[in-house]
Amino acid sequence: MKDLFVNGVVCKDAKLVKADDFLFRGLHVMGNTSNDVGSNVTAVTVAELAGLNTLGISLARIDFAPGGINPPHTHPRATEVLTVIEGSLLVGFVTSNPDNRLFTKMLEKGDVFVFPQGLIHFQKNVGYGHALAIAGLSSQNPGVITIANAVFGSNPDIAEDILAKAFQVDIKVVRQIQSKF
Amino acid sequence: MKDLFVNGVVCKDAKLVKADDFLFRGLHVMGNTSNDVGSNVTAVTVAELAGLNTLGISLARIDFAPGGINPPHTHPRATEVLTVIEGSLLVGFVTSNPDNRLFTKMLEKGDVFVFPQGLIHFQKNVGYGHALAIAGLSSQNPGVITIANAVFGSNPDIAEDILAKAFQVDIKVVRQIQSKF
Amino acid sequence: MKDLFVNGVVCKDAKLVKADDFLFRGLHVMGNTSNDVGSNVTAVTVAELAGLNTLGISLARIDFAPGGINPPHTHPRATEVLTVIEGSLLVGFVTSNPDNRLFTKMLEKGDVFVFPQGLIHFQKNVGYGHALAIAGLSSQNPGVITIANAVFGSNPDIAEDILAKAFQVDIKVVRQIQSKF
Amino acid sequence: MKDLFVNGVVCKDAKLVKADDFLFRGLHVMGNTSNDVGSNVTAVTVAELAGLNTLGISLARIDFAPGGINPPHTHPRATEVLTVIEGSLLVGFVTSNPDNRLFTKMLEKGDVFVFPQGLIHFQKNVGYGHALAIAGLSSQNPGVITIANAVFGSNPDIAEDILAKAFQVDIKVVRQIQSKF
Amino acid sequence: MKDLFVNGVVCKDAKLVKADDFLFRGLHVMGNTSNDVGSNVTAVTVAELAGLNTLGISLARIDFAPGGINPPHTHPRATEVLTVIEGSLLVGFVTSNPDNRLFTKMLEKGDVFVFPQGLIHFQKNVGYGHALAIAGLSSQNPGVITIANAVFGSNPDIAEDILAKAFQVDIKVVRQIQSKF
Amino acid sequence: MKDLFVNGVVCKDAKLVKADDFLFRGLHVMGNTSNDVGSNVTAVTVAELAGLNTLGISLARIDFAPGGINPPHTHPRATEVLTVIEGSLLVGFVTSNPDNRLFTKMLEKGDVFVFPQGLIHFQKNVGYGHALAIAGLSSQNPGVITIANAVFGSNPDIAEDILAKAFQVDIKVVRQIQSKF
Repeated sequence: MKDLFVNGVVCKDAKLVKADDFLFRGLHVMGNTSNDVGSNVTAVTVAELAGLNTLGISLARIDFAPGGINPPHTHPRATEVLTVIEGSLLVGFVTSNPDNRLFTKMLEKGDVFVFPQGLIHFQKNVGYGHALAIAGLSSQNPGVITIANAVFGSNPDIAEDILAKAFQVDIKVVRQIQSKF
Repeated sequence: MKDLFVNGVVCKDAKLVKADDFLFRGLHVMGNTSNDVGSNVTAVTVAELAGLNTLGISLARIDFAPGGINPPHTHPRATEVLTVIEGSLLVGFVTSNPDNRLFTKMLEKGDVFVFPQGLIHFQKNVGYGHALAIAGLSSQNPGVITIANAVFGSNPDIAEDILAKAFQVDIKVVRQIQSKF
Repeated sequence: MKDLFVNGVVCKDAKLVKADDFLFRGLHVMGNTSNDVGSNVTAVTVAELAGLNTLGISLARIDFAPGGINPPHTHPRATEVLTVIEGSLLVGFVTSNPDNRLFTKMLEKGDVFVFPQGLIHFQKNVGYGHALAIAGLSSQNPGVITIANAVFGSNPDIAEDILAKAFQVDIKVVRQIQSKF
Repeated sequence: MKDLFVNGVVCKDAKLVKADDFLFRGLHVMGNTSNDVGSNVTAVTVAELAGLNTLGISLARIDFAPGGINPPHTHPRATEVLTVIEGSLLVGFVTSNPDNRLFTKMLEKGDVFVFPQGLIHFQKNVGYGHALAIAGLSSQNPGVITIANAVFGSNPDIAEDILAKAFQVDIKVVRQIQSKF
Repeated sequence: MKDLFVNGVVCKDAKLVKADDFLFRGLHVMGNTSNDVGSNVTAVTVAELAGLNTLGISLARIDFAPGGINPPHTHPRATEVLTVIEGSLLVGFVTSNPDNRLFTKMLEKGDVFVFPQGLIHFQKNVGYGHALAIAGLSSQNPGVITIANAVFGSNPDIAEDILAKAFQVDIKVVRQIQSKF
Repeated sequence: MKDLFVNGVVCKDAKLVKADDFLFRGLHVMGNTSNDVGSNVTAVTVAELAGLNTLGISLARIDFAPGGINPPHTHPRATEVLTVIEGSLLVGFVTSNPDNRLFTKMLEKGDVFVFPQGLIHFQKNVGYGHALAIAGLSSQNPGVITIANAVFGSNPDIAEDILAKAFQVDIKVVRQIQSKF
């Protein structure tokens, strides 16, 4: 049976379901921000909390070191609603072609901001201390596409001439960026 | 135009949309729990944050005085995923007929629990201090039905003989409860 | 294979499907109303009629003894549209917070009434004879939550202090009601 | 404002909604079956019952004279679940290409049958008296396409050579059928 | 495992998915139009291209001999958007009861036309040469119901008296048409 | 009335709808590929073809000069199914975190490929002549986010230090790329 996957997740026999299936512990644990971008996302999706299956929602905790960023990314299957628990965040999202308008705001503790489904968005800790946000996402399995990683760090690489033309840069620059991811 | 409502909410001309339409401020403000149940819900739905329109998600903050409860209620159009920011909560939901199983857990800071769509659920602050939770809901307009208020405090009242038979109590008890709501 | 459940129901091999899979017999049989509330619901959902799988609809028959009630309840995943086949029914539903408005009507044979998704509603036979209604529900598995049973008769019980505070009654009253369910 | 249509139906200001918006009267009235097919459908959709708006369900009453048929038809946006209130019906639906299997059953009072979304189906009163069925449909606006009327009675006509080739008959036969609709 | 079907199609283990699962080859191959109607549909649905599973879309190629028709048919679960790659097509669809309006257009190369979900529609090659169209459909498994085949060629047959009354023709005409399908 | 927008598009009065509302002309016209990337997309969405409103599908034509690319982009609300009408295309999409797998294929005339909703994908004309593809998209308004334009060409710019950290490059490189968009 180990090769059978249905909508990604098999439902449990209703008779065997128990309260633990609806519980996840540990969202209070600060994520490790010692990385290149200075942020960390702890996701609570159907992969971590089986009771979310078929229910269309998930949560995440985002930690930011001072100056840390959650780099430009999208959720292919979800809108995100974020609230700042601690610190100050500069956030933004960019609309679709042809306008590519950047909607941006400085958020303080208690502010709530919406990142509509599939749009590229980012957050940056612009305060002096650690920053923390909690986000709701409108899918049990929202997915995350970090733009830089998907474009310059895919496995295998996207051909460098395609990226050079797409970003209007020399192939050397593409290679340089690819080497980081 | 004031009488036209579509899915409850009219979309704004895309050209006039601005970043403020995606922003709500004030979720850090503690709700006033000086009431009969000792809790307070601050909802951020499409009514408070227009940018949620069509996007299928909302947030809420729930404050609890010591011993306070968020009394048994349902969201007719949403699943809720709650995480404890501060304090200790006893939570539970009850499944449908015929089993009416109570799934219950004691939650501490950082615990996440799922209340599936439309099921009756509750939370109680079982710690010594204030408790705080943040919840995501899978609708821009989830609705809240507090069971006691809807059943015993509707406007006008549900006929007392119906409630007496439904709850298997004397009509005097129904009247007594109705008088509180 | 007995532990595999998908959306609750496994689809049959299309080649093996036959007309019997779309047929349920017996909705003309009067339900037994010799119970505390004087009513009986015969549901035809995907559990009783496999051919409803994935199709988003089900039916029910509701019988009422004289004076019988279908006590306040909700369907967590469906709107109900009911028509009176025989008798006279007093029906109503209550809207969400903060208004808790009761929308109520006296229905006669041939009247049709809508109970929107997830709202608490009830029916009472206010005629001299038996009453009968047929209802369509907008889910193959609408679920039924009888408020009194879920709140006062869950298994295990909801803590009595929570119910006492929620319904603003003495704990003795809670125990009294719980003892009936 | 008379030219504005949204999903076909404008929502009413929630403050102005009243119980009458959820009520339709008259489904007990026998439809007039004095027509070419000997049957009559009384539909209760959002056009007749505004409170169904956005709720995804509707009802219908179908009357049959002895020998009357509800001729082959489809609902482009709904599954139908029908129950026989009175009489005996021969019913059936045909699956899609390439199999075109006819799933057919003789229904008596109390039998329930499913006609999956968009499939061609029919009913015939095969008893000696009047027959009556009540059906639930999984859309507030299911639509009805009577095959013969749409194919041979459209306005304007479908070109007769197309129908002759489609039905593999002489153009005279097409004209003869078209003259009836 | 061969008897287990879920939404018709089992998802593959994500780790085993490969690029070939998203690829179908051969839509450039002209379909064989040597048949009674002079047309041929090559469908690329989830049955032919597993990577479409859960994604709500499919494609089709339609070839027409001179004078060939794609006879009146419906897709029970999809809207179709067609564009003419080569040739001239007369196309049309008929609205629901009671209007049965025929919306028809002559299409040339590069024209795009919409056939809304579940409505009866057709195309005819009215040019001198071969015609070719590509269509998108809004379901991974749209289904096709060719009206003549489903009504007069089902297996087993729909009773001839039902069809005679439905199409207002003599039973002999029904038998004649049935004999062709 | 010019400021009222509902789901982006107002439905027309059904009585006034005509065949032209379902027709778009001109998809045979080759797009102008004399631009930095050597490709051009002609979209037929609800903005160009009003009859697609509420129907969940659209079409597009993509032209490629020799060596031209359709640079990495996403559709926030749609899956794309593309078929090659003429020429040879190298195509690919990248999966979500953490794997960022590139699924890539060389497509020839008649090949069909799926780009799942919201994932970053691209096409490149690797043949000697012009290339042409037709694509179906599972939304009436799929949206297009060209990664380079949204990230480096938004209006106003995303702060250069955020992009420098996200792409792990010097701020000079960011400025250089931004200057191109």
